[in-house]
Amino acid sequence: MPINHAVIDNPKSDRIKRVADLARAKGRERSGRFLIEGPQSVREAVAWRPDVVSDLYVAIDVDPDGQPYLSDTLAAIVDKSQESRETPIYVHQVTRDVMNRISKDAQGIAAVGDIETLHTEISAVRLSERPIIAAFWQVRDPGNAGTVIRAADAAGCDAVVFVDECVDPLNPKVVRSTAGSLFHIPVLRMDTGTFLKWMERAGLNTIAADVYGTPERRPESLPDVLAGRAASDADRTGAKGVRGDAVLFGNEARGLPAAILERMDRIVSIPLYGKAESLNLGTSAAVMLMSLAMSGR
Amino acid sequence: MPINHAVIDNPKSDRIKRVADLARAKGRERSGRFLIEGPQSVREAVAWRPDVVSDLYVAIDVDPDGQPYLSDTLAAIVDKSQESRETPIYVHQVTRDVMNRISKDAQGIAAVGDIETLHTEISAVRLSERPIIAAFWQVRDPGNAGTVIRAADAAGCDAVVFVDECVDPLNPKVVRSTAGSLFHIPVLRMDTGTFLKWMERAGLNTIAADVYGTPERRPESLPDVLAGRAASDADRTGAKGVRGDAVLFGNEARGLPAAILERMDRIVSIPLYGKAESLNLGTSAAVMLMSLAMSGR
Repeated sequence: MPINHAVIDNPKSDRIKRVADLARAKGRERSGRFLIEGPQSVREAVAWRPDVVSDLYVAIDVDPDGQPYLSDTLAAIVDKSQESRETPIYVHQVTRDVMNRISKDAQGIAAVGDIETLHTEISAVRLSERPIIAAFWQVRDPGNAGTVIRAADAAGCDAVVFVDECVDPLNPKVVRSTAGSLFHIPVLRMDTGTFLKWMERAGLNTIAADVYGTPERRPESLPDVLAGRAASDADRTGAKGVRGDAVLFGNEARGLPAAILERMDRIVSIPLYGKAESLNLGTSAAVMLMSLAMSGR
Repeated sequence: MPINHAVIDNPKSDRIKRVADLARAKGRERSGRFLIEGPQSVREAVAWRPDVVSDLYVAIDVDPDGQPYLSDTLAAIVDKSQESRETPIYVHQVTRDVMNRISKDAQGIAAVGDIETLHTEISAVRLSERPIIAAFWQVRDPGNAGTVIRAADAAGCDAVVFVDECVDPLNPKVVRSTAGSLFHIPVLRMDTGTFLKWMERAGLNTIAADVYGTPERRPESLPDVLAGRAASDADRTGAKGVRGDAVLFGNEARGLPAAILERMDRIVSIPLYGKAESLNLGTSAAVMLMSLAMSGR
């Protein structure tokens, strides 16, 4: 097993500096790698995408007799990481000090992943029989970005698309907020034109999730759309006869621009029944995507 | 107008110490008051519940000529606060230093509210024609507590109930996370027995939102419940002929205990279609409550 039993205890070593540097966009660009922090994310990474993970860093504790040991939670993740024969994952034991230098949010375990291996091309996305694509235009907040990837995963979406200038999905805070969903579902980045061309070619209904719509086109209400689908399956069939949806959500503060709304097949809003002025992006995405998923199966 | 034009500039004054002390449970108990931080929460408080608000604290900036001024956002909230004649709200101008002492999260404005005035007795809750009550058992995280109050508001729920030992809904972090919804919808606290007796008396369907159920009773799937309701209105009618639901959500980590599950009319779970292991409490509440609201109107 590629487990290095020497304990790394120098937080200033070049290796540790390079790992810590993956928190910055520059560090990720330079090395082609990204950081995965915390037991939940690392567990999902080694379980679902061991091919992506190159190195594991685990914090060693010392018992009262001076013997080093690993907590059960961490030991189980390390064991899991060694199950795949084809793609060796190197395990490095480190002191708590060194782990703190790697990340304050690692809770004892962090991994390094390969950006290129995680990357999915459009041509590699396999759509299911009744696909749902969850797309986000200019999502900027790392916490939101992670939450929406998690919501898309829960709704069984076929892929997540970050459209135009979004936060980097490999920013460690995004990775952490996905709670492992980043390793369950392909996440792609592209511009609006490429996204719309792909959806056109795939024959999916394009739905803008938007509260305001355009002066010419008021949004349909989500419950009306769901009732229409319950009444007739034809409602979910796109121009090319494919039964599937691509839902595009707008920026947290500005929503979607008119130029994009005009190019979508439908505009759908989530009704607010009380006095709340709005739902946040993560909640909107969960309600809309889960509703479509539940109505389709 | 009860606006005090003298600018409070001493962060150590007794008045300011007492306001800052409302961040702690002890301070709220002692004074019977609570803290409302930030433009959004304060705006909703003075718009919907001016009777609750006694004092407003606004940070004054100084322009290059040494003249004090108030930003437009804050000035609009102060104006709004003076519209109600019956319940005077006292406005205190403070320096940025003093505001920082009151709260690091105030973004220039904070208010003090009266706990007793905000408090709602069960007998004072007016149920709508098709009521939904959102109840939470032992919700512990302040951010979650705020998010679920906001979700219940968006779904047009008639009331929120915190059951047994929950986080204090007047903890400033909860108040902030509700984004003003605390002033849109009654929030009550009671024990399980009182809650179930109230629901029994009101004749509502009691629904446990739970993934596991009990060995004898597996949860129904939310889309099946929604489809049943779309097919027949009878499905949403409780034992006493009232068309309404009370949904009880469990603790973030432990869900609901069997002893409570056994006393609920139905157990309903949100299906997960992808590889995600769970939804967090805020997302679950939003999906379940919005789904029930959308299916009912």
